Amino acid sequence: MCPFCPGNESHTPHEVLAYREPGTEPDRPGWRLRVISNRYPALKIEGSLDRAPHGIYDRMNGVGAHEVIIETPEHAFDIVDMTDSQVRDVLWSYRERMADLERDVRFKHIIVFKNYGEAAGASLEHSHSQLIATPIVPKRVQEEVSGAKRYHEFKERCIFCDIIRQEVADRERIVKDHDAFISFVPFASRFPFETCIMPKSHQASFLEMSDHEFTILARCLKDTLLRMKLALNNPPFNYVLHTRPLSREYHDYYHWHFEIIPRLTKTAGFEWGTGFYINPTPPEESAEFLRQIDISQYGATEIRQANG
Amino acid sequence: MCPFCPGNESHTPHEVLAYREPGTEPDRPGWRLRVISNRYPALKIEGSLDRAPHGIYDRMNGVGAHEVIIETPEHAFDIVDMTDSQVRDVLWSYRERMADLERDVRFKHIIVFKNYGEAAGASLEHSHSQLIATPIVPKRVQEEVSGAKRYHEFKERCIFCDIIRQEVADRERIVKDHDAFISFVPFASRFPFETCIMPKSHQASFLEMSDHEFTILARCLKDTLLRMKLALNNPPFNYVLHTRPLSREYHDYYHWHFEIIPRLTKTAGFEWGTGFYINPTPPEESAEFLRQIDISQYGATEIRQANG
Repeated sequence: MCPFCPGNESHTPHEVLAYREPGTEPDRPGWRLRVISNRYPALKIEGSLDRAPHGIYDRMNGVGAHEVIIETPEHAFDIVDMTDSQVRDVLWSYRERMADLERDVRFKHIIVFKNYGEAAGASLEHSHSQLIATPIVPKRVQEEVSGAKRYHEFKERCIFCDIIRQEVADRERIVKDHDAFISFVPFASRFPFETCIMPKSHQASFLEMSDHEFTILARCLKDTLLRMKLALNNPPFNYVLHTRPLSREYHDYYHWHFEIIPRLTKTAGFEWGTGFYINPTPPEESAEFLRQIDISQYGATEIRQANG
Repeated sequence: MCPFCPGNESHTPHEVLAYREPGTEPDRPGWRLRVISNRYPALKIEGSLDRAPHGIYDRMNGVGAHEVIIETPEHAFDIVDMTDSQVRDVLWSYRERMADLERDVRFKHIIVFKNYGEAAGASLEHSHSQLIATPIVPKRVQEEVSGAKRYHEFKERCIFCDIIRQEVADRERIVKDHDAFISFVPFASRFPFETCIMPKSHQASFLEMSDHEFTILARCLKDTLLRMKLALNNPPFNYVLHTRPLSREYHDYYHWHFEIIPRLTKTAGFEWGTGFYINPTPPEESAEFLRQIDISQYGATEIRQANG
C-alpha cells in the first residue's frame, strides 16, 4: 500500500496545498499534486528555538517545517514521464510553499530536495520531493553565500553570473542552453555527471522567476533528468534547490540554482576527512556525453507503458 | 589473488617502508607491515603545482603522495584481530611516513584514513589504511583549524582541550577513558555511533606522541573498533586521522584526533544540500551502548578461526 497513491489520503498527514479537480475535497482523490507535512519530520513546526548553552556546547530545539510534495497521482511516473505542465506544477508548488513559509520569522532558509532511488535515500518509490525550512542558514548554503559575498566585495559582480558568462563562452561544459536557463556540469564538479541548472538573469531567490520562466525551467529540468536517465541507465540521484536565505541582504550576490547529483560513486574516508572529492570523469566529458543523448524517442513510450 | 598477501609483492608498487624479519629482502615475504605507493594514486608525487587561472576559475596539478599501509600479512585479520603491538606498529608506520613526507615543502597537510567494508569504499578486503599528502589544507581540516583559531583568540585555550574537560566531567558520552586518551561520542555527532579518539594532553600533531603513548593508543583504537564491531554486527566504517597542517603556527589551538564513522545511514539530498546531518540516535545512547559491550571474549577465538 503506497500512502502517496490516490485513495490513500487518510494514511498521510493533512494536505497543506493541493492542485485538484474543481469540486473535489481536501484529503480525498481528485488531485494532480499534493503537499503534506512529513509524517516523520526532521524538524517540528511548534515551539521556539530556546537557544541555550550546555557547558561549552550549544543546543536549540529542532524547530522548522518538513513537507512532502507528492508530484503526481501516478505511482509509476517519474519527472521525466510527466508533461511539461505537470513538471511546472511541481516547481510552482515549491514556490507556493516557500512563499507561505517565508512569512514565518523563525525561519532563515528553505531548502527543497529530491531523493530518487533507494541508493539516493528515497524510502518511498512514488515520485516526491521534500521541503525543509530551517531556523539557521544551512552550512553549505552559508559557504556559498560567504564566498559569493567576498567575491562581490572584490569585484562588485555576482560570481554565479560570472560563472554563467564563462560557461556560455567556453561551451564545453554545457549540457543544454535553454535561453533563460543553462544546464551545465560545473568546472570543478565533485561527482561524475553532477549537473547544475541556473537562471541566466540575476535572480537570488527562486521566488523572483516570472510565470513564463517556470514553463521554461520545467522543460530544462525534465530535459536534464531525462538525459541523465538515458545516459546512466536510470541512476539514483539527488537534486537540491539552493535559493537565497530569507533576507533581502543577500540579493546582490547570491543566485539560485539546482544541483543534480547522480549517485554513481561511493564516498569514503578521504572524502569524509578532507571534504575533497576525487572525480574520475572530467566535467567536459560528462557534459559532452549528456549533450549527445538523443531524448526524442522517450516520453510517449514510457507513458503508454505506465498507463498499462 | 590478493596483491596485499605475502608472496604477491611483485604485484604492487615498490615498498617505501616495511617492518620485516631480519635478513629478508624488500618486496619479498617476511614482512609484518608494508607501506607502498598506491597503484592508482589520487595525486602524483612528481612535478610542481603550476597554479594558474582558467578564466575566473583556478587550476593546479594534482601533486601529492598517496600511499597504502598493508597492516598485516594475514589476509583475514582486521585491526581487532591483531595483537596490541601489531596495532601499535600500524600507528607507528603512520608516524614514520608522516615524518618522512613532512620534509617535502610542497605539502601542507597529511591525512590518514581507513575504509573498512565495501559500503565504506574499501576495494580490497585485506586490511589496509591509506595516507594522502596534499599541497593544500583539506576543506574539513581548514574548517576545524579556523574554528579552533577563533575560539583560541576568544578564550586563549584549545577548544579540543575544553571538549575533553567537559566530556570527562559529563561522562555520559564517553565510550572508554584510557587515561592518556579518551574515546567518546561527540556532543553533536553527525552519525549514529560516530566516535572520536583524542589525546588528553594538548598535542596538535600526531608526531608529538611519546613511544609509550603509542602503546596506549593502540589499545584504545582496538578497544573502540572492537566495541563497534560487536555492537553493530561488524559494520562497514571509515576512520580518519586529523592532525595539524604542516606548520607550527597551528600548535597552540589544534589537537589531533581520530574520527570513526560506522556507515549505518544513507546520506541523501538534505545532507548534500545543507551539510547538516539528521542523527536518529542521541550520542549519549550510542556511548552507553558501546560502553556496555563485553569485549573480553573476542580476540583469541577469532584469531584461532583465522588461522584455520
